[in-house]
Amino acid sequence: MASSITIALDAMGGDLGCEAVVNGAGIARVRQPDVHYEFHGDEGQLQPLLDADAALKAVSTIHHTDVSVDMEDKPSQALRKGRKTSSMWLAIDAVKQGRAQAAVSCGNTGALTVMARMILRTMPGISRPALAAIWPTMRGESIVLDVGANVVAEEDALVKFAIMGEAMARTALGQPKPTVGLLNIGAEEMKGNEEIKAAAETLREADLDFEFTGFVEGDDISKGTVDVVVTDGFTGNIALKTAEGTARLIGDYLSNAMRRSFASRLGYLLARGAFNVLRQRMDPSRVNGGVFLGLNGVVVKSHGSATAEGIAAALDLAIDMARNDIITKIATDLHQVEEEENAADVEATEPEPSTV
Amino acid sequence: MASSITIALDAMGGDLGCEAVVNGAGIARVRQPDVHYEFHGDEGQLQPLLDADAALKAVSTIHHTDVSVDMEDKPSQALRKGRKTSSMWLAIDAVKQGRAQAAVSCGNTGALTVMARMILRTMPGISRPALAAIWPTMRGESIVLDVGANVVAEEDALVKFAIMGEAMARTALGQPKPTVGLLNIGAEEMKGNEEIKAAAETLREADLDFEFTGFVEGDDISKGTVDVVVTDGFTGNIALKTAEGTARLIGDYLSNAMRRSFASRLGYLLARGAFNVLRQRMDPSRVNGGVFLGLNGVVVKSHGSATAEGIAAALDLAIDMARNDIITKIATDLHQVEEEENAADVEATEPEPSTV
Repeated sequence: MASSITIALDAMGGDLGCEAVVNGAGIARVRQPDVHYEFHGDEGQLQPLLDADAALKAVSTIHHTDVSVDMEDKPSQALRKGRKTSSMWLAIDAVKQGRAQAAVSCGNTGALTVMARMILRTMPGISRPALAAIWPTMRGESIVLDVGANVVAEEDALVKFAIMGEAMARTALGQPKPTVGLLNIGAEEMKGNEEIKAAAETLREADLDFEFTGFVEGDDISKGTVDVVVTDGFTGNIALKTAEGTARLIGDYLSNAMRRSFASRLGYLLARGAFNVLRQRMDPSRVNGGVFLGLNGVVVKSHGSATAEGIAAALDLAIDMARNDIITKIATDLHQVEEEENAADVEATEPEPSTV
Repeated sequence: MASSITIALDAMGGDLGCEAVVNGAGIARVRQPDVHYEFHGDEGQLQPLLDADAALKAVSTIHHTDVSVDMEDKPSQALRKGRKTSSMWLAIDAVKQGRAQAAVSCGNTGALTVMARMILRTMPGISRPALAAIWPTMRGESIVLDVGANVVAEEDALVKFAIMGEAMARTALGQPKPTVGLLNIGAEEMKGNEEIKAAAETLREADLDFEFTGFVEGDDISKGTVDVVVTDGFTGNIALKTAEGTARLIGDYLSNAMRRSFASRLGYLLARGAFNVLRQRMDPSRVNGGVFLGLNGVVVKSHGSATAEGIAAALDLAIDMARNDIITKIATDLHQVEEEENAADVEATEPEPSTV
């Protein structure tokens, strides 16, 4: 595989517009010099921003469009106005056409899910893609999926999420043999809904190349108990947003506490280096970006409100996924599981020899 | 209603044993002097602890039992060994017998749910009780329910949770007209699963005494967007534990950051008053205690690992619920909704006058 990677960017979908996207690419370029960037968006806005960063301009191309998907658009509205013309559609299509190895957008999640699925199609055996997030933990980082691409997930979908999440953990976290857990309300086997119990049974019995450790609870995510936490998109999305809300609440408490007295203000000044470290660790932009898994191509979703730093983090992730050819890894793993299932089915339906 | 309240305590169920329970009551007694405490547990352990606190001893009685429910017991095991004999059963039974106005336990949630339901029975119209938690927010406190009493909740259960949570918000938060939201993965009407959409429609159309604001997302809990957040026990439990895990992770980051340099250590010393405030606000024991709603009596569940301070907070909540007679308030609200439903049913099934 050639070392040169092209990333297609939807430059118009985010809350902060083209400027954050171009500046984010500028930051990423310094860290990863041999990457080409394809900006999809309004040339009139993009050109002066690139003119201001000669090094980035040298590795970039602009693909003009003035059609953008808005944050408020329903997926159907987004398709009506932006199919084949919007910056979001065109960035994903660059992956489909083989020009780019990954697409990055900070636009509307619903529209991105629908367009990505329509353009890139799901892999064999996958009915719907999952959105995987990288979550900071006490032991480093873990992967949580699905964080919002699907409202419900049945047994089969949860099993596929485990397989795809495990492939991502090997690539994005560098874990040779990741551990995988299913999110539940208790570690005991009897708890949870029917889909989760059935998925746990399948994962326990299957001959998988990773360690399925059983059920984990909400606080196990931050503890880093397992490398991959599998859940349905409804629960995963609420867990992710609850964690973000809690981090913001504590940040609020902290800044109020520090303004309390002269001593605490002086203490804050002395410790401000430490506070900056803390702020960086708590900053959602550091772990910004969910990856759609289960599509025939890499699509990374960045926060809608992502700053240049946040977009750079999403680009790092996209480049990493593309360089390590995550799509082939997932496809291989899924194919292997399908083969095993088929073999088991054949065995189960084989007629008794004596009946012939 | 008499101002004298008796609280029955399961003194044996928690991880920290009798000592934390008695010391917790000692702290609560100072704040709320006219309350009587009934301790259910091992007399040999309880007596010396009470002897050490004369003021608490004067308002306490010991009901001896050496049978306790363990944290690892499944509800069926807990019932087999502890029905009618365990400290948990006896504390709840004191409410049933009318001797106590509330029971408090830091024992096994599953066993407590089953025993509370078996002894006190659910209110008319309620098939299963819900566990409600008080959650710290940017605007003060909100109530979230269910946080784990039920794995699934259908439309009717979610509607009842809204009615019960609203009654608790009037009592525990002192909100004359609380706002209520349904937890979902997006504020848009089209999102979410079928139960949530149906519950939202019923709540929107019903003639209720509170403001139903529609859907809220995970980060709205900490923001304090609404006074009452309604969700099923699976999602609520995972949200609660994810928030606890996030708070612990940030606490960990903070203490590591403060040990980084001489300046940050000195700064920490100067600002330690502020850090203590922060630690108190982040301390789960401050908001300790979930209340079972929908039973014919008040049962408060405290964290299994609750310290004396945590147990005192759970006692404060139990005393508050008992004093404000939350059970009658909920029963009245539920009765009113049932009446309305029946009236609507009669209207709908009334024969056409002309057909006679």
